[in-house]
Amino acid sequence: MDGDHPLATTLVIGLRHTLRKMKNAGTHATGLQEAKYHIAFRPDAKMVTVPEGTLLSDAIAQAGIRFNLPCGGQGRCGRCKVVVEKGEVKRRGTSRLSTVELEQGYALACQTMVYDDLQVFIPPQEAILRRLPSEKAAAEIPTLPVECDWQSNPIVQKFFLTIEPPSLSDNTTDFERLQRELAKQYNIRNIVAGLPVLRKLARTLRESEKESQGWQVTAVLEMGSWLDEDAPPRLIDLRPGDHTGRTLAVAVDIGTTTNVVYLVDLASGKFIDSAAAYNAQISCGEDIISRILYARKEGGLEHLQRLVVGTINELLHELAERNRIDLSEIYAMTVAGNTTMIHLFLALDPSFIRLEPYIPTINHPPPVRAAELGIHICPEAPVDCLPSVGAYVGGDITAGVLSSGMFKTDTLTLFIDVGTNGEIVLGNADWLICCACSAGPAFEGAGVHSGMRATVGAIEEVWINAQTYEPTYQVIGNVPPRGICGSAMISLLAEMFITGIIDKSGRINRHLNTPRIRMGEHGPEYVVAWAKETRNQEEDIVLTEVDISNLIRAKGAIYAGFSVLTASVGIDLADVEQVLIGGAFGKYIDVEKAIQIGLLPDMPWERFKYLGNTSVLGAFTALLCRDMRREVVEIARKMTYLELSADNRFMEQFTSALFLPHTDMTAFPSVLRLLDQQGK
Amino acid sequence: MDGDHPLATTLVIGLRHTLRKMKNAGTHATGLQEAKYHIAFRPDAKMVTVPEGTLLSDAIAQAGIRFNLPCGGQGRCGRCKVVVEKGEVKRRGTSRLSTVELEQGYALACQTMVYDDLQVFIPPQEAILRRLPSEKAAAEIPTLPVECDWQSNPIVQKFFLTIEPPSLSDNTTDFERLQRELAKQYNIRNIVAGLPVLRKLARTLRESEKESQGWQVTAVLEMGSWLDEDAPPRLIDLRPGDHTGRTLAVAVDIGTTTNVVYLVDLASGKFIDSAAAYNAQISCGEDIISRILYARKEGGLEHLQRLVVGTINELLHELAERNRIDLSEIYAMTVAGNTTMIHLFLALDPSFIRLEPYIPTINHPPPVRAAELGIHICPEAPVDCLPSVGAYVGGDITAGVLSSGMFKTDTLTLFIDVGTNGEIVLGNADWLICCACSAGPAFEGAGVHSGMRATVGAIEEVWINAQTYEPTYQVIGNVPPRGICGSAMISLLAEMFITGIIDKSGRINRHLNTPRIRMGEHGPEYVVAWAKETRNQEEDIVLTEVDISNLIRAKGAIYAGFSVLTASVGIDLADVEQVLIGGAFGKYIDVEKAIQIGLLPDMPWERFKYLGNTSVLGAFTALLCRDMRREVVEIARKMTYLELSADNRFMEQFTSALFLPHTDMTAFPSVLRLLDQQGK
Repeated sequence: MDGDHPLATTLVIGLRHTLRKMKNAGTHATGLQEAKYHIAFRPDAKMVTVPEGTLLSDAIAQAGIRFNLPCGGQGRCGRCKVVVEKGEVKRRGTSRLSTVELEQGYALACQTMVYDDLQVFIPPQEAILRRLPSEKAAAEIPTLPVECDWQSNPIVQKFFLTIEPPSLSDNTTDFERLQRELAKQYNIRNIVAGLPVLRKLARTLRESEKESQGWQVTAVLEMGSWLDEDAPPRLIDLRPGDHTGRTLAVAVDIGTTTNVVYLVDLASGKFIDSAAAYNAQISCGEDIISRILYARKEGGLEHLQRLVVGTINELLHELAERNRIDLSEIYAMTVAGNTTMIHLFLALDPSFIRLEPYIPTINHPPPVRAAELGIHICPEAPVDCLPSVGAYVGGDITAGVLSSGMFKTDTLTLFIDVGTNGEIVLGNADWLICCACSAGPAFEGAGVHSGMRATVGAIEEVWINAQTYEPTYQVIGNVPPRGICGSAMISLLAEMFITGIIDKSGRINRHLNTPRIRMGEHGPEYVVAWAKETRNQEEDIVLTEVDISNLIRAKGAIYAGFSVLTASVGIDLADVEQVLIGGAFGKYIDVEKAIQIGLLPDMPWERFKYLGNTSVLGAFTALLCRDMRREVVEIARKMTYLELSADNRFMEQFTSALFLPHTDMTAFPSVLRLLDQQGK
Repeated sequence: MDGDHPLATTLVIGLRHTLRKMKNAGTHATGLQEAKYHIAFRPDAKMVTVPEGTLLSDAIAQAGIRFNLPCGGQGRCGRCKVVVEKGEVKRRGTSRLSTVELEQGYALACQTMVYDDLQVFIPPQEAILRRLPSEKAAAEIPTLPVECDWQSNPIVQKFFLTIEPPSLSDNTTDFERLQRELAKQYNIRNIVAGLPVLRKLARTLRESEKESQGWQVTAVLEMGSWLDEDAPPRLIDLRPGDHTGRTLAVAVDIGTTTNVVYLVDLASGKFIDSAAAYNAQISCGEDIISRILYARKEGGLEHLQRLVVGTINELLHELAERNRIDLSEIYAMTVAGNTTMIHLFLALDPSFIRLEPYIPTINHPPPVRAAELGIHICPEAPVDCLPSVGAYVGGDITAGVLSSGMFKTDTLTLFIDVGTNGEIVLGNADWLICCACSAGPAFEGAGVHSGMRATVGAIEEVWINAQTYEPTYQVIGNVPPRGICGSAMISLLAEMFITGIIDKSGRINRHLNTPRIRMGEHGPEYVVAWAKETRNQEEDIVLTEVDISNLIRAKGAIYAGFSVLTASVGIDLADVEQVLIGGAFGKYIDVEKAIQIGLLPDMPWERFKYLGNTSVLGAFTALLCRDMRREVVEIARKMTYLELSADNRFMEQFTSALFLPHTDMTAFPSVLRLLDQQGK
C-alpha cells in the first residue's frame, strides 16, 4: 500500500492492535483476516504492507528496493544487515552480528520476521562491481588448440538465392518455391521453418524484388542439431539482398561469478570481439548453493533466469554497439556453464542438484530458440548448451576438455578447473575419468576473514621477508587494499609456510619476533596490511588460523581428488605427462606456490600449461563446426564420473592432504629441497 | 484522450483552428504538429482525439466501442452506417447510402475520414449471433467413412512407468532415468523433450513417489510428426500416477463462418462431444476477402489471430466444463480450414492469396505447440493443420477427400463443397484433380436483397403453387421470417422456374396474374413474404431479378467447374458414379431442386450422398491415427490443381451455364421431362 493516506494507516494499526489482543487472548473469531503490518523504509522513503511473519528481505523486495542477498538468504554471509529503528521483530538467527550490533538494532534481513509495524534503515551494502573491465578480454584474441573444419560444416549457413516470382502458370506457394530453389541451386532438400520466419516470408520475398532480376534473398539455415544430426535444415531467417559475407554467432560462458560472450563470424571462423560482466545473479547469492536456495523461493527461479539472461543481453548490446552490428543478425549461440548455471539459465528446477544423491534434471538440454529464453538475437537462432556429465561436472568442464584438445592426444593429461569446486579430468584420447571436489568457496574469498573476489582493491600476490616476516603485496588496480583474493591466499600460505610463520599443520608460530603475529578476536592471526594502509583505514587485513585451516581443507580436497582419480585407474600421479589448468581463476595461480602448499602435484613446471577461460573457448569451438559439437557430446558420453562422496578412498586421501604440502613429504621433493635450503 | 478536462479540450480546439487556418492559407510552418480532432460518440459517451484524415471506423476502434465491419472495411456491405451529427467529414464512398440517408447525415464508418471535430451517433448494428445452438451437433455422433488402425499407431500415446528413485551409486539424471525406463519397459528409445516439460520433471517424479513402490508416473509421448515420421518421440507431459485410461485430443474445423471442435479419446478412438460457435473474426469481415483486407491494417492480422483462437478457446472451455475434464489433459489438436483461415490462425500474411497469381505462404504449415498459438490445452500439445493444395483449395477440402474415403475407392467420384467458393474434386484411388470456382457469396445471403445467413428467422425452404403462384415457406426456428438463406434461394429459384414465374434466362414473367410479381425499387421482383408476416413488419421479403441473376452466376460458376474438370481428364459428367456433398451448407441442399436450376448435374438421385461437415470429420480422421495423417499429406500431394482463371474453357462453360438449368438442355433430361409435364 505504497502511498497510503496517513489516517488510513492509523486506522489499520488501531484495528490490528485489537486483533492482536484477541489473538493473544486465545479468541479465534472465524473470518478475521491475518494481521498485516506496515513497514517504512529509510533512506528510500518507501512503505509496504505485509502479512505477519513475512521475512524482512521479502518486504524489501516488495518495496522495490535494490538489495543483495550474497548467500541467497541462508543467514550465512551476514551481508544483508539492516537496522530496525522502530517496532519489534523475531530473529531466526543472529550469527554474524556482534552484541553491539544487536543492541544497536542490527538484524539480518533474510533471518528476521515482521510481527509489528516497523521502521527500518537500510545501510549501503558493499557494492557489487557492475562490470568487469572488458578491454583486457577483448584484447586477447583466442586461438583454438583443436583444429576443426568450420568451412565445410558450420552449424548455420547462409545461401544467396535469385528466385523467379510466381505466375498463374507457376503458382507454387512462397515456401515451396524457396524450397525448390534451394534444392536446385544448392542441392539442399526438405527444409523446414518455424512460425516467426513463415510470418515474414511473403513480405520479405516481395520486398527483395530487383527490377527484372526477380526476387533476391539470403536464406539462413540451421544445418541439423546434435539431438538429430539428420534433422532437415531449418530456415531461421530470410533477408532481402545478399548477406552471405559473414554469419555472426556467439559463444557464451555462464560462470557463477562472471559471464563472457565471444562474438564470432562462422563464415570465416574468426573471433571478432568479446565482452564480460558479473553474472547479475550474484545479488541473489554468490555461490551455487545460495542460488539453488534462492531458486526455491516463490518466483525465485524465474527471477534468477531473467537476471542471467539480462546480463547476457547487456553484453550482446555492448558487442553490437562496439562492432556496429544488428543483434538480429546473430544466428547461433552456444553456452557453457556448470550444471547449476545451465539449469538456472533454462529455468530448470535445480533443487535436487544440492541434495543427496545430487540429481540434475538433464545433462544435455535440447537446443532451444533464442526467443524462448528472451535472448535478444535472431528469435529463431538455436541456443545450444554444452552437455554436463553430472551435478558437479558441468558443460564448462566438457567445454574445457574439448578446447584443451586432451580428448585427442596420447599424452596422459590431467585437466583441472579450480573454483568453488575443483573439477578434475584425467585421461587422453582413449579414456576420460573425472570427479568434482567440494573445495568450498575459500579461494573465492568466502569463509576467509579478509577474503574478497579478485576485483579492484584485492591483494593478488604476497611475498614475505624470511628474516623480518614483513610482507610486500600487489593490489589489483594499484589502489589501497580492501582484502585478499584467491591467488594471494595461495602465495600468502606458501610464503608463511616457507618462512616458518606456520607449520605443516597450518598453526601460526606465536614465538616469532614480529608485531605481524598476534592474538585476534578469532584466535592467532597474521597481519598482511595495517588499517592505515587500507582503503577504509578502519581494520587491519589479516589471515587467521581459522582462515588457514579453511584454505588447507580446500587445497586438500582438490589434491585428494587427484590422488583418488589416478589411483582409481591404477596409475601414479607422477605418471601424468601434462597438467592443463583451465577456468578463470586458473590463470592467476602461481604454480610454484601452489606446489609449495600441496594444491598442485610436485612435478617439473614445464608440464603445467595455463589455458585461460577454457569454458568459453569450448563453447567457441563447438560453435564453429558441427564436428566439434558432435565431439563434445561424445566427450560427455565417454567421461566416467567418480562420485567422491560415495568413495571411501577420498576421505582417507583428504585427511592425508590436510598438511602443508602433504603427510607424504616424499611426494613433494622440490618442496623438501626448498625447506632444506631455508633451514626450516 | 478519454476523460480530458473540458478546458484542455477547448484550448486544443482553439489551437487547432489556428493551425487549420494557417494550413488553408498555404502556410507550412515546419515543426507544426499535424492537426488533431476530437470525436464524441453517442450513445456510448466516449471521446477520442485523432489525427486529420483518420477513418471513422479506426476512431471507433480507438474509443473501444464494439463495432462490426462485415466486409472488412471495403465499403461494400453498407452495414457500418453511423450518423455524423456535428462537424464535417470527407466521404471516400457513399454506395449503399440512399439520398435520404445522406441528407440525414448517414455515413459509412469505413469510408469516412475525419477533418473536423465531430459528434457521431452509432446506431445499433444487426446483432451477430454469438453462439450456434450446439445441442444438435453434440447429439450427432460422427462415424468415420474410412477405417484406420488407431490402436496401433496414434499420434499421442501414454505410458505408465514405475521407476526406481536415484541413489549415489545410480545417479543418472531425471531425464535419462525416464529415457532408460521407457526403453526397458516399452522399447521406446531416444525420447526428447521441450523446456515446459523439463521444467516440471524433477518435481513431478518426486511427487509421484508411493511408499516403497518408487516413482509412478504417466509419460505422454508424441510419436513423430508428419514432417518427420522418424523424429524421436517427444515427451509432451508427465503426470504423477496412472492416467493411461484415456488420451484426450481435439479436432477443429475453422470455417470462415463457423468453428467446430470435436473432443476425442485417442485411447479408444471414440468421439466424446462437440461444440460449435461463430468464428469471432466475423466482426472484422464476413467473407475471406474482407478478412484479408482487414489483416492489412496495423495490428489487424494479430487481432484476427486472437479472435479465432479466442473462439476455439471458448469452445474448449465449454467442452471441458460439460465433460468435467481438465484442459491441460488435451494432448493433440488437428485443424482443418481453408487456406486463408489457416493463415489467419497462424498469423501468416494472407495478402497474396487475394492478389493474382494467388500465392499462399505455405500449403502445409509445420506442426506448432499449443502454447505458441495461445490455445488453452497442454502447452506442448502439437497443433497440426491439414495441408492445402493451393490458395483456394484448402485443408478443409483435403480433409473432405480424406473423410469421404474417395481417395481409396475405384468408383469415379465427384466431391463438392459449396460455400462462397465451390470447391470440386474429381477422381478415385488412382488420381485426383480439383478446382475452385468463385461462386460469390450469394448462397450465403450476401448480394441478395433479402438474403441472410442460415440462422433463426431465415426462410430455409419455399414451395410455389403452380396455379396461384402463392408461396409456402418454412422458417428456421418457426418464427416470423427475417430473410432468405441459401437453401431457400435454391428451392425458390427452382420453383419459380418450374412454375414459369421466371424463364430460362432468369427474367420474371410480368404478365402473370398475381400481386406477388411487381416492379420494385430495383426492378422486377417476386414477393416471398409480405411485410405484415415478417418479424419487423416493415418490409416485404422479395427476390429481385438482380438477385436471380446473381444466383444464376453463382450456380453457373460451379457447374462450369464440373464441366471443365471432367473435360480436362477427357470424361463426361454422366460418367461420374457418385457425387459426395460435403461442407456445412451441403447438407441443406435439396438435390432435386439443385438439379432443376442446374447447380448439380442431372443424374439419378441415389448417386448423391450428403457427408455433413467433412472438414471436421477429416480433422478427426487425421487426429485418430498416424496412417491417416500421412494419408492426408499424400492426398494433398497428389491432387492436381486446375487454376480456372487461367483456363479459357472455363469462361466458355460459364457462359453456357448462365441459363436455367443450362444452354444444353439435353444434359438435363429429368428437368426437360418435368417441364413437359408442367406444360411450360
